Amino acid sequence: MPQASIMERFEVNKETIAHLKSLLRSENKQALGQYLAELHVADIAEIIDDLSIEQAEVVLSHLDDEDSSAVLMELDEDQREKLVERLSPKEIAEKFVTNLESDDAADLLQELDVEVQNQVVSAIEDVEHASDIVDLLNYEEGTAGALMGKEMVVVKDSWDITRSVREMRKQAGEIEQVYTIYVVNDNNVLKGRLPLKRLLTANVHSKMSDILIEDIEGVHTETSQEEVAQIMDKYDLVALPVIDTLKRLVGRITIDDVVDVIREEADKDYQMASGISEDIEHSDSIWQLMRARLPWLIIGVGGSMLSAVVIGGYEASLAAIPALAFFIPMITATGGNVGVQSSAIIVQGLANNTLKSDNLAGKLWKELQQGLLNGLIISALALVFSILVFSDINLGFTISSALLLVILFASVTGTLIPLTLEKLDIDPALATGPFITTMNDITGLFIYFLVGQYIYTSII
Amino acid sequence: MPQASIMERFEVNKETIAHLKSLLRSENKQALGQYLAELHVADIAEIIDDLSIEQAEVVLSHLDDEDSSAVLMELDEDQREKLVERLSPKEIAEKFVTNLESDDAADLLQELDVEVQNQVVSAIEDVEHASDIVDLLNYEEGTAGALMGKEMVVVKDSWDITRSVREMRKQAGEIEQVYTIYVVNDNNVLKGRLPLKRLLTANVHSKMSDILIEDIEGVHTETSQEEVAQIMDKYDLVALPVIDTLKRLVGRITIDDVVDVIREEADKDYQMASGISEDIEHSDSIWQLMRARLPWLIIGVGGSMLSAVVIGGYEASLAAIPALAFFIPMITATGGNVGVQSSAIIVQGLANNTLKSDNLAGKLWKELQQGLLNGLIISALALVFSILVFSDINLGFTISSALLLVILFASVTGTLIPLTLEKLDIDPALATGPFITTMNDITGLFIYFLVGQYIYTSII
Repeated sequence: MPQASIMERFEVNKETIAHLKSLLRSENKQALGQYLAELHVADIAEIIDDLSIEQAEVVLSHLDDEDSSAVLMELDEDQREKLVERLSPKEIAEKFVTNLESDDAADLLQELDVEVQNQVVSAIEDVEHASDIVDLLNYEEGTAGALMGKEMVVVKDSWDITRSVREMRKQAGEIEQVYTIYVVNDNNVLKGRLPLKRLLTANVHSKMSDILIEDIEGVHTETSQEEVAQIMDKYDLVALPVIDTLKRLVGRITIDDVVDVIREEADKDYQMASGISEDIEHSDSIWQLMRARLPWLIIGVGGSMLSAVVIGGYEASLAAIPALAFFIPMITATGGNVGVQSSAIIVQGLANNTLKSDNLAGKLWKELQQGLLNGLIISALALVFSILVFSDINLGFTISSALLLVILFASVTGTLIPLTLEKLDIDPALATGPFITTMNDITGLFIYFLVGQYIYTSII
Repeated sequence: MPQASIMERFEVNKETIAHLKSLLRSENKQALGQYLAELHVADIAEIIDDLSIEQAEVVLSHLDDEDSSAVLMELDEDQREKLVERLSPKEIAEKFVTNLESDDAADLLQELDVEVQNQVVSAIEDVEHASDIVDLLNYEEGTAGALMGKEMVVVKDSWDITRSVREMRKQAGEIEQVYTIYVVNDNNVLKGRLPLKRLLTANVHSKMSDILIEDIEGVHTETSQEEVAQIMDKYDLVALPVIDTLKRLVGRITIDDVVDVIREEADKDYQMASGISEDIEHSDSIWQLMRARLPWLIIGVGGSMLSAVVIGGYEASLAAIPALAFFIPMITATGGNVGVQSSAIIVQGLANNTLKSDNLAGKLWKELQQGLLNGLIISALALVFSILVFSDINLGFTISSALLLVILFASVTGTLIPLTLEKLDIDPALATGPFITTMNDITGLFIYFLVGQYIYTSII
């Protein structure tokens, strides 16, 4: 079976899509089936995301149920919903749910209305599979319970190698990838794991209890998915067992699910910092994009209205010294940049769990030193520039001393706000981006005009 | 062996560190050794990052060579360098390199001066291990070759199950975690993989060539680590074989290394967007923090100097209508926010490989529609506000029409610039954050004052 290499396949390019579309148009079923057989399910999903729903249905109908289920789960949520909507609960159960591992099946059901969900569940023929899925649906989204799957290779500590291998043969048949062989006692309490190495080397009459390794432990079903990701990352785990309060083994989380969590978390923080409030892609509809972008823009404009009022309060000063207006952008830009830098360091430290000690005073002191150093350099640059270009010493002292104060202020608030949000159990990433720049605009301008008034009046 | 649960252990808290420090002070070697034996290497590393080098050395000396090598590789780079600096090349080879898997060993050597590197390599006793490491050092950083390890379970396609199991026993002994059993031919060309399931169920006389699964393919040694991460993520792989130009199996990349790549990439983009030019943590030295932050601040201030010159060109207008200054922050803030949003969507799409078609005109058209919609709403808000608060219709029309133009301009440049950088093989993330806000400040102000001049003079 000659296949394209992974690198050639990886780039689903326009030609692949064009070729598939021409096959769809020509209605040459055999050629379409053959062409699809050469593609990986992840590639087919990538192509289907670009097709109409009618075309997507035709493509799926050319795959066997197992492949079409796998493709379905790789699709964008929108596209998947549209495809599933067109099927009856019975069809959803038979075509898709039956062929999915329990965690994927639960994810699919989670996207349906509760009523349809129940109808699909009752249409699943394999009672054990149905019960696994119902179990998983009970866990709150974002917890280890909702992330885990039920498919595991499990042996009992009282079994010997011969019996274990016999049971493993049965279990492994239904499981895509065996990560770890778990050992439990008769009450299903997790006792340890059996490495492949020991399985291969031990005497066939050895009991599992004698050869298991105890170094494995589970997370609880309620552990948050962020914590699961941090644990698997920190301890370099590819699979993590999940236990209930009685320490019974109830499922396992695999690294590929956690990679998705890590990506989502990183994307969310990045989007927050960029002033985007929902998970969007360039290919989303104009309305979705607008819903994610407009709120932050309105917050920004609202803040700028306050800035306008602050500056309006100094209209007389501006009329007397119009040059004060020249440096408004320098005050707002610098305050914003410093604030975003400070808060980003905190937000990233919290996300990566590298911000260990909770010595708040120490953190603030460090930021103040930072701010003082950077502030002195930036202020000096601004002083020289303003005197050279605008030949106004008062203006020079106003902008440079205001800049220093603004930088110190932005350093402190940029550090304090995300830490405070974290303490209040609000996502600290909220503090970055438009929020902090808007706040710093207003206070920065206030500082600037106060300093300006003081310097000009005290000198005149 | 009663151990703390993974959740209890996960949080290395102040008490753990305080307890360890008191044990270090008391010089009670036995108690220290016992306490350390209960901790996971990842936890010990987290603690050592907070200790002095002298204390760190004492802690390491209480671990066996295998654990201390594992701890070493989990440390922050600074701390690791300081510890390694104090050892002779022979000690580095014997204490650490010998006990590390080839990819970790190569990473460690990469951090040393070339001269020390060579001395360490020649001090490695296991010739095969040394040759593996030297091989790995030859690959360019950031490629699959530099990311891969040499430890794999490999069987030949001509072997039967009995022979394969015998060889696997030998190989598995040295390998931490067996992900996949690879099958090669006599020329070491990758032919497929052997799933655990088939190993357990096949007849012991079956040849590997009859039971292998062919669906596995390798990436080439020169493939970039970003592409490796995207491939493993897309196809949900936990291990990926690496092949040379003759398709010979030369190594394998495991998912935990790729998780690190994904995190690093996400961190880098986040830092770029936040105006931080190096990978820093809050715990780094003031100088490191300054080096990462000051450059962007200077670029921002440089841009603001240009803004000052632009505004300075309209000093006469400002003297006549000081109220024009009120809305300077609204112009700069909105231009910046829109620009960052637009560029962030492109940067993220490029990073996650979701930005497929290269239909540039289509992307720009979508952004323009977006910009027009958001711009009309934002402009309307600004118009109402300025007329209500400052009772100046001319000012209202100036700010609202300038805002609309600024938003359209920022949408287009925010989309174009990262796409252009990508085409030029420059990291598109450069376009986000301070860079785009500074550029939009200058052009936005130019637009604003031009519009203002036109409206006021045409009406007067």
